[in-house]
Amino acid sequence: MAENQPFSLRQSSISRQELVELVRSQLEALLQQGNFPGAKALLVPVQPADIAEAIEGLPKAMQAIAFRLLSKQEAIEVYEYLDPSVQQSLITELRDQEVLDIVDKMSPDDRVRLFDELPAKVVRQLLQQLSPSEREATSLLLGYKVGTAGRIMTTEYLAVKEDLTVSQTIERVRVLANTSEIIYYLYVTDRERRLTGIVSFRDLVIASSEQRLSEIMTRDVIFVHTDTDQEEVAQIIQRYDLVAVPVVDTENRLVGIVTVDDVLDIVEQEATEDIYALGGVEAGDDNYFQKNIFTAARKRVVWLFVLLLANTGTTAVISAQENVLEQVVALAAFIPLLIDAGGNVGAQSSTVVIRGLNLKTVGIKKALQVITKETLTGVLLGVMLGIAVIFWAYFLEGSLPIALTVGISLMAIAILAAVSGSGLPFLFGALGLDPALMSAPFITSVVDVLGVFIYLTLARTILQL
Amino acid sequence: MAENQPFSLRQSSISRQELVELVRSQLEALLQQGNFPGAKALLVPVQPADIAEAIEGLPKAMQAIAFRLLSKQEAIEVYEYLDPSVQQSLITELRDQEVLDIVDKMSPDDRVRLFDELPAKVVRQLLQQLSPSEREATSLLLGYKVGTAGRIMTTEYLAVKEDLTVSQTIERVRVLANTSEIIYYLYVTDRERRLTGIVSFRDLVIASSEQRLSEIMTRDVIFVHTDTDQEEVAQIIQRYDLVAVPVVDTENRLVGIVTVDDVLDIVEQEATEDIYALGGVEAGDDNYFQKNIFTAARKRVVWLFVLLLANTGTTAVISAQENVLEQVVALAAFIPLLIDAGGNVGAQSSTVVIRGLNLKTVGIKKALQVITKETLTGVLLGVMLGIAVIFWAYFLEGSLPIALTVGISLMAIAILAAVSGSGLPFLFGALGLDPALMSAPFITSVVDVLGVFIYLTLARTILQL
Repeated sequence: MAENQPFSLRQSSISRQELVELVRSQLEALLQQGNFPGAKALLVPVQPADIAEAIEGLPKAMQAIAFRLLSKQEAIEVYEYLDPSVQQSLITELRDQEVLDIVDKMSPDDRVRLFDELPAKVVRQLLQQLSPSEREATSLLLGYKVGTAGRIMTTEYLAVKEDLTVSQTIERVRVLANTSEIIYYLYVTDRERRLTGIVSFRDLVIASSEQRLSEIMTRDVIFVHTDTDQEEVAQIIQRYDLVAVPVVDTENRLVGIVTVDDVLDIVEQEATEDIYALGGVEAGDDNYFQKNIFTAARKRVVWLFVLLLANTGTTAVISAQENVLEQVVALAAFIPLLIDAGGNVGAQSSTVVIRGLNLKTVGIKKALQVITKETLTGVLLGVMLGIAVIFWAYFLEGSLPIALTVGISLMAIAILAAVSGSGLPFLFGALGLDPALMSAPFITSVVDVLGVFIYLTLARTILQL
Repeated sequence: MAENQPFSLRQSSISRQELVELVRSQLEALLQQGNFPGAKALLVPVQPADIAEAIEGLPKAMQAIAFRLLSKQEAIEVYEYLDPSVQQSLITELRDQEVLDIVDKMSPDDRVRLFDELPAKVVRQLLQQLSPSEREATSLLLGYKVGTAGRIMTTEYLAVKEDLTVSQTIERVRVLANTSEIIYYLYVTDRERRLTGIVSFRDLVIASSEQRLSEIMTRDVIFVHTDTDQEEVAQIIQRYDLVAVPVVDTENRLVGIVTVDDVLDIVEQEATEDIYALGGVEAGDDNYFQKNIFTAARKRVVWLFVLLLANTGTTAVISAQENVLEQVVALAAFIPLLIDAGGNVGAQSSTVVIRGLNLKTVGIKKALQVITKETLTGVLLGVMLGIAVIFWAYFLEGSLPIALTVGISLMAIAILAAVSGSGLPFLFGALGLDPALMSAPFITSVVDVLGVFIYLTLARTILQL
């Protein structure tokens, strides 16, 4: 089977990235030569996901040409894998009928994701031209709020009535098999379309042909509502090891399913949002290379201005105690160390707490327990760092009183940082704010202001200024 | 169907967390009263994953008692969902035969995950007592390196020969159905056990009974090798929207499958590792509440000491230019602002680049393009912040030369931070080091040392000291 698969992973040990790059460069060369049959043959053994990535890497002018080489069925599959921005530009490049053929055959959830990116006018136009059933499915999904189960579900599932026999069901499946995206389960509903059970294909294979679905179905079905948050949908699929979860409306009628492949993307997207928030960058699911620097700057500048304001306190504290620095200017040399160390101990505590809160492994009820533990860890870190810094500062400056001032301040700052780093995320969580986004500037402020204050006050006492 | 499900999600709109807490508290009360039949009845309608979490929340002494209330089949399912530390403590609590019953019936991948946590002596003892086939499966998995496909795969799949007819295959499936964990696909192999295709249950249902598997199977199978990194396995499953991916050895013989539910855990675990690394915390997949403060401190202190060393440069720069500060001590008040702003602009750039590198959306080839873009963003941010800071510092200190010094330094520092924040992750990536772990201390050092140097040098020029 390997013979006709020059670009399959099977053949050799090249990575997917290398494979895609190989396909992309060959494709570009063949298209430049106008060798369309060659380009077509090149793509035959390649997986749709890899073709999509290769097309994304082509010069813009070639993307539509390469896309036209695909068979109709393959074009639809590849299109669903393309980045929304490339999907969008292809829509303008292709003739209306070509566009319609593709959009009409996309699965409803992928189509809605595309529509979310397109201008409202184009969406209206496309919607009107869809076949009635596809239009209905799409409008249904578009009616739900972004980020809910209703919006990410697909309406391509197989629902059957519970009084069907296994052989009758298999007949139905044979007829409908090609209209459904993935069908690992059949969903069993009553006369009012209310979900009453599920049957897996494995159950169907094992059952005897005269059994009724009501006898073999699993009744204890885990499901979500149309307004369930997508993050919660992901958690439920993950928690119960599901391949798909049914979605019901307020009257418990089955309206769609969310599949595990969509959930994988959500888990990754949520992790990216958390990471960005921790790094002080407003998240966006758009492609890095699509964003211009003004968008990039806009997503960061607010956070930096908040920090600037927060620093007013620190500046004020130092200004107020300028006379201490005036007398022993060497003290200023250790301010960056104290600021950095405090920021880092705080970041360590808040990272652990925030990730725990987001993954729900740390509950708000355990706040006191977590803060206590983090504080003790802060004491331990503070003592270790403090002692090290006393030696280090003495070595650098040669003054024991200064070294003691720096070391003891560092201990105090580490403890302070651990308390605020673990406590503030709980506070923001309890207030309904996003701990990942809010914590860092506030922790920095608390630690900087109090840290510098402790340092200069301690210096006044120890150095007897 | 809702009547006998007092604790199912179906009944009401309580969240899973509330459900688990309700079950836990009721269970604890019933066990304290010695009402075992009541406790048993309570657990009947609850999902295994939820029972596991409720048991984890019980006082240690009660965990084994609660666990004994479960039916044999349920006990195995619940056990697989328990936290490794609770699994471990149950092993010591339960009688040898009970332990053996459970461990022998676990799926090989879950069993290996348990064995990874148990003391070597206990593992050896348990391995000897397993049934021969289970022992073989477990030893096979234990032979592969942690973090590879071989280690996370399960050996519970159904392999069939390609000359079987559909009806013969269905017969085989009926006989073997209960021995396999999940079976969405059948794996077709040749006489040498080499993987030649896959057949889904849906294909089986649709095909006519006399067709041979070789006629209906999909030949272009995506698979991984036993030594493929688990992160790559996750990416492949995600990229090609798979439910399970087959694992082959060096001779292309099928040895196991990795299922999507394990991959979800991996995606989440990798995200946690990245987040921890960015926050300066060494990752560990253990439960937060299990770790004592010494372990927690050990996972953080190294990073802090690296930072301490890095700060030597900053301290040296300030000490060397002490005379500048001596003359205009007000300059010291702005050091925290400059340090914080530089750190944050650097963190923003590095966050975006590191996440992109880890998700493979930003390749090392595009380094120059990314660094250029980040630098321009840094210029933009620097100009905006710098101008704001000139007004702000003038308002605070009333001296235009000082305000100009601070503002211009901030511009320079923002640019510097953007360059090092975007460049260093690529450098570490190219050197084969983990950018998430390495970048922060180095960015801090570069920005602090050069930033303070620029600031004091600029002050000397502008203030004509």
